[in-house]
Amino acid sequence: MRLGMVGGGQGSFFGPVHRTAARLDDQFDLVAGRFSTNADNNRATGTALYLASDRIYTDFTAMARAEAARPDGIDAVSIVTPNYLHYQAAKIFLEHGIHVICDKPMTTTEDDATSLVHLVEQSGLCFTLTHTYAGYAMVRAARHLVQSGAIGTIRLVQVEYPQGWLAHSVENGQSKQAAWRLDPSKAGPSACLGDIGTHAYHLVRFISGLEVTELSADLQSFGPGRVLEDNAHIMLRFKGGARGLLWSSQVALGHQNDLRIRIYGEQGSILWSHTAPEKLTVIGPDGASSIMEKGDQTLPSEIQSLYRLPSGHPEGYFEALGQLYKDTATVIRDNNAKRLCHDAPGIIPDVLDGLEGIRFIATALESARHDSRWTALPPRGV
Amino acid sequence: MRLGMVGGGQGSFFGPVHRTAARLDDQFDLVAGRFSTNADNNRATGTALYLASDRIYTDFTAMARAEAARPDGIDAVSIVTPNYLHYQAAKIFLEHGIHVICDKPMTTTEDDATSLVHLVEQSGLCFTLTHTYAGYAMVRAARHLVQSGAIGTIRLVQVEYPQGWLAHSVENGQSKQAAWRLDPSKAGPSACLGDIGTHAYHLVRFISGLEVTELSADLQSFGPGRVLEDNAHIMLRFKGGARGLLWSSQVALGHQNDLRIRIYGEQGSILWSHTAPEKLTVIGPDGASSIMEKGDQTLPSEIQSLYRLPSGHPEGYFEALGQLYKDTATVIRDNNAKRLCHDAPGIIPDVLDGLEGIRFIATALESARHDSRWTALPPRGV
Amino acid sequence: MRLGMVGGGQGSFFGPVHRTAARLDDQFDLVAGRFSTNADNNRATGTALYLASDRIYTDFTAMARAEAARPDGIDAVSIVTPNYLHYQAAKIFLEHGIHVICDKPMTTTEDDATSLVHLVEQSGLCFTLTHTYAGYAMVRAARHLVQSGAIGTIRLVQVEYPQGWLAHSVENGQSKQAAWRLDPSKAGPSACLGDIGTHAYHLVRFISGLEVTELSADLQSFGPGRVLEDNAHIMLRFKGGARGLLWSSQVALGHQNDLRIRIYGEQGSILWSHTAPEKLTVIGPDGASSIMEKGDQTLPSEIQSLYRLPSGHPEGYFEALGQLYKDTATVIRDNNAKRLCHDAPGIIPDVLDGLEGIRFIATALESARHDSRWTALPPRGV
Amino acid sequence: MRLGMVGGGQGSFFGPVHRTAARLDDQFDLVAGRFSTNADNNRATGTALYLASDRIYTDFTAMARAEAARPDGIDAVSIVTPNYLHYQAAKIFLEHGIHVICDKPMTTTEDDATSLVHLVEQSGLCFTLTHTYAGYAMVRAARHLVQSGAIGTIRLVQVEYPQGWLAHSVENGQSKQAAWRLDPSKAGPSACLGDIGTHAYHLVRFISGLEVTELSADLQSFGPGRVLEDNAHIMLRFKGGARGLLWSSQVALGHQNDLRIRIYGEQGSILWSHTAPEKLTVIGPDGASSIMEKGDQTLPSEIQSLYRLPSGHPEGYFEALGQLYKDTATVIRDNNAKRLCHDAPGIIPDVLDGLEGIRFIATALESARHDSRWTALPPRGV
Repeated sequence: MRLGMVGGGQGSFFGPVHRTAARLDDQFDLVAGRFSTNADNNRATGTALYLASDRIYTDFTAMARAEAARPDGIDAVSIVTPNYLHYQAAKIFLEHGIHVICDKPMTTTEDDATSLVHLVEQSGLCFTLTHTYAGYAMVRAARHLVQSGAIGTIRLVQVEYPQGWLAHSVENGQSKQAAWRLDPSKAGPSACLGDIGTHAYHLVRFISGLEVTELSADLQSFGPGRVLEDNAHIMLRFKGGARGLLWSSQVALGHQNDLRIRIYGEQGSILWSHTAPEKLTVIGPDGASSIMEKGDQTLPSEIQSLYRLPSGHPEGYFEALGQLYKDTATVIRDNNAKRLCHDAPGIIPDVLDGLEGIRFIATALESARHDSRWTALPPRGV
Repeated sequence: MRLGMVGGGQGSFFGPVHRTAARLDDQFDLVAGRFSTNADNNRATGTALYLASDRIYTDFTAMARAEAARPDGIDAVSIVTPNYLHYQAAKIFLEHGIHVICDKPMTTTEDDATSLVHLVEQSGLCFTLTHTYAGYAMVRAARHLVQSGAIGTIRLVQVEYPQGWLAHSVENGQSKQAAWRLDPSKAGPSACLGDIGTHAYHLVRFISGLEVTELSADLQSFGPGRVLEDNAHIMLRFKGGARGLLWSSQVALGHQNDLRIRIYGEQGSILWSHTAPEKLTVIGPDGASSIMEKGDQTLPSEIQSLYRLPSGHPEGYFEALGQLYKDTATVIRDNNAKRLCHDAPGIIPDVLDGLEGIRFIATALESARHDSRWTALPPRGV
Repeated sequence: MRLGMVGGGQGSFFGPVHRTAARLDDQFDLVAGRFSTNADNNRATGTALYLASDRIYTDFTAMARAEAARPDGIDAVSIVTPNYLHYQAAKIFLEHGIHVICDKPMTTTEDDATSLVHLVEQSGLCFTLTHTYAGYAMVRAARHLVQSGAIGTIRLVQVEYPQGWLAHSVENGQSKQAAWRLDPSKAGPSACLGDIGTHAYHLVRFISGLEVTELSADLQSFGPGRVLEDNAHIMLRFKGGARGLLWSSQVALGHQNDLRIRIYGEQGSILWSHTAPEKLTVIGPDGASSIMEKGDQTLPSEIQSLYRLPSGHPEGYFEALGQLYKDTATVIRDNNAKRLCHDAPGIIPDVLDGLEGIRFIATALESARHDSRWTALPPRGV
Repeated sequence: MRLGMVGGGQGSFFGPVHRTAARLDDQFDLVAGRFSTNADNNRATGTALYLASDRIYTDFTAMARAEAARPDGIDAVSIVTPNYLHYQAAKIFLEHGIHVICDKPMTTTEDDATSLVHLVEQSGLCFTLTHTYAGYAMVRAARHLVQSGAIGTIRLVQVEYPQGWLAHSVENGQSKQAAWRLDPSKAGPSACLGDIGTHAYHLVRFISGLEVTELSADLQSFGPGRVLEDNAHIMLRFKGGARGLLWSSQVALGHQNDLRIRIYGEQGSILWSHTAPEKLTVIGPDGASSIMEKGDQTLPSEIQSLYRLPSGHPEGYFEALGQLYKDTATVIRDNNAKRLCHDAPGIIPDVLDGLEGIRFIATALESARHDSRWTALPPRGV
């Protein structure tokens, strides 16, 4: 499937993340983009991604029009710009019949949001909002457990999303991110809630399925001179009687991205934390806890199928193995024929390491045959 | 760069893992393969990977010859067959000038291993042995710390790699994996050491840089009827006086893939565990411990550059975001125009979830403006 | 020092805990008591505690009068009755010049509380309210850090005290505790807040030193038929601008006694949890975290002196060693002369285990002298 | 029961620990002792413990004789001297009909150990060797599980006891402990094994019940100039075919007292660590793990009865509550009538804190009655 991208130029935070994620399952080919309003950055980004030069656009309206006109035009577009551009970009691509994958918050006003809803409904196009956390297998397992009645009627929801990166006044020159996220003209009327509070809110809705009927909010701007909130305390009341607390913060020193949700029902509880996303703690009616992980046989197959790695391999395993592939590609590209490490293992395990492994096995077998006699290994090399 | 693969047909364990890892950094295109000795499986695997039909080979010797002759032939080949085929496959590709990425153990005999060393040296080609663990950023950080003298002269190395999947006699029909790994004709003279012991051994060598001069091994076959070892206890003596213990097991119930290494020096210690691969515990001369993670400013830039995600995002983040992309592709492909969930959030966050998020922000701001007055949210939908 | 007790008869929850704690540092001798309104229980409890029969009282007013009149009367009294008796008991002992150690909540009405304040001030007596958590060394370390300015001006306080023991309707016959704690005539106007919310509140005040100027509370009674709250959500505003959330619950399945506090300042944060009370997480201005434990040299001596055990010994060590003493006392008392276990180690390590240990050492030394030769150990026994 | 003590003078490590443990369950009264060969220390220690001056002995032989002759003589003696005195002291008390509680290792030679076995058998007296770890409830639960067949026939035992306090050469003046433990004339022929290796060995025997038939040991002295071992690697073979590894070390920087045992059977595994002594990890035949803690209903009553505190209260709770009692005793003793803290909570929670708690409850109830309206709290004080 052909993918385009708006935003995500060199130096951006989430552009490369979206591109890697899009590539992971071999479902999308990135073929077009308008990555930056800075022309040099825009061109350099597209070129480094092997894009044809006529599909590196300087304007996303032109891009939507041109791609819609091509027989091999993009099927979908990924929008990873600052918040204030989400609406315009999404609108133009939807109007040209192109599916949209859009970062959150979707828009900066409710009117724009409503307008997009109508556009999507009329067009029948796919619109995916990247509340990434909904993609974790254990978050979906949590949702499944609630839906299956495993914890009974929900009474309490405790959700929190603390970060600490705005504890100091980094918006004054140190962080471009911080600058636009705290600027009402780019971020909209909210900073902390728009950036991460909506993730927490969606997660509550996604797992519990419960509707929030009322909220009571206490918002603060702790950083000197800030006009948008950098911390939020919100009490929640749900349809059916459940209650909750939502805390989101960007001034909580020591936290990086620590989204956490705990849901308590009449017959059990579930707890999930982004710091250990591959685990789900499930509490039974007697208070006993168990840890659910991939490979758990009680999970339905649609949850189990979400895993790309066998049990016991943390998700980072791809990154580790990918690193060896990447390093290998670099070595080949540099035509570095002298890279065998004769004195000790080098960064990339090589044929001499293979030989050492074989000798290790042989020596261990020999020692064992002689009732664990200490047995010498030959030094590295042939 | 163009990549071929030998082994890794449908149903295989590591084939898909290698393919995803190869794709992660957009460095390799898989264009040729001999995936299985089963012709149907072979063809089906290649077709599902969009390979041209003339590059789905039934014989890896023919593949090496044909690819070497093409102007657009593969640059490198990934070998993920059972152990006993590693040598033959690696040899033929090296002889045809093709770089090799090979699973461990490299061969089943020391002679074969030595022969490969010579071939690699003569050819000047790249040979990467996939001791995956050497690709983790924190393993490389550990190596860097040792090399920089941070823990002083090493005294002790404790390494263990326990698994539990062979605690029961699954080789008798339940697990194809177990069957070949415990069969001397396919696995070679060793099971547990060849499969995972060499990983542990390489990790010791990789991080410590120390040479093992002698070992004393006690090997066991606990599973009834097994001729190859399923557990190994090995005492190690290193050049320079350090000592160590190496335990690898496949009958340790409760463990999945729990490689762990602890290195104690005169001035500090380092501890790394595969169950939390993104952390490295570092002990100073006074016994105080600190946790090193990505983003740690004291790490040299070549270690920091290994991370593909900003701090606070566990490596599984790619999998979660990739899942949303994958699900989106499925929806688009199925032309599922009715997928908006009007009653509650669906599996893929969509435009109605976006609207809810915007309303959540607006309502929170309103409540806050009225001194936290309880404020109603509208129900889902436009 | 001589101690009396009111409440804490056989079957009570906290009576034995207070008695053990009082004994720990050899500062108090329990010599008088009125343990239960049930005469049999009262007498049996006192007798089991070796009390003289004339100091086992059936009425605490009579007890206060009699003890005050004796030359060897009690110096202090420990009050561990249900809440509604705290006031009357504390009052009468204070009026008779006896120091008071009283369980929380101190009274059930503000008038009673104020009256006790006056009594204490006029009498100059000691009145200790057993907010036990204030006795943990790491809680005091947290207080010290805040006072020393280590985290700068406080911005946020997150405190929670979830329990799950009232998730089901155990007040209907299953739990005497639950029955009185949910009965307004015995517990006063509040259940969850009175029982555990005040602990959380005191902890906030104790560590932060900050005054709460306003609160906004949402209270719930989830258990069918309950008139007192079993869950509380409270937003806090502090003098000077800090904000906070307080959650206390008795229907949160999976929690037992999980008091936790997190305080975020402009220059750092501190986190303490009752599930690991011997640790304190301290975050610096750069977001880096460290774990403070006993033995930490940066703690002032008054904190370090709180520890009764050397580093590396968890507090439960006393219980383990105490168990061996207790078991030994039981064996001696039962005159069990045949208790040596000749076949395998018995519950109490004995002289045969000592012999085995000595042989283990001797055999290990011998094996090592012979280059790790496998060396036999003799079977158990002489 | 009356207790005496040999060793444990002021400045000693384990004397106070044994005294507190002996007091915990109110089973022993310490009434006699010879605490130190230093006369001043000896007298000062005894006096601080409220001992009658004629029962503070300068010689343990005289003490045994005198106590045996008194009608109110000691029932048992606790021996906490350096290793080389254990034998002589134990012998003399046993010969005088006094029960013995003795620190490990029991003696420094096998002959002495055998001689003690005969003495105990002939006398019918109780002899307890303080392998403290055998007193932890979860260690006993582990033993019970093995005995009940829960994990089937044992295959593997992995035990380790690493410490780091001898990583540096502290025996040269910095640590009296280190000096005698590394001096063969006081510690006997072994340092690390005698001090902590025997604990590990006993724990293996205590939980598994298995006999060790052979061992292969590799011992090291890493500290410059040391003649006794400071690290030990030992491979174990058990009767019946099980195998094991034992590692004990005093040069492993970062460890304090980290005894850990893992036992793997044909049908399950159990794992216990001294760093979290109140938990026991139990693995079932399918590899699924659960955490066993006090309160677990599947434990037999003799294990459950070992707990002195209700579920959810870590064992350190006694220390925290004991601290409030201790602080209260200090305040009373110092006749400190002015200790009420009027500005903020003081170190000991007092009557003003009680008043604050009551007001907190009242204010929360009022806010809740007004739909969470922000409600002011009065400032501290009456």
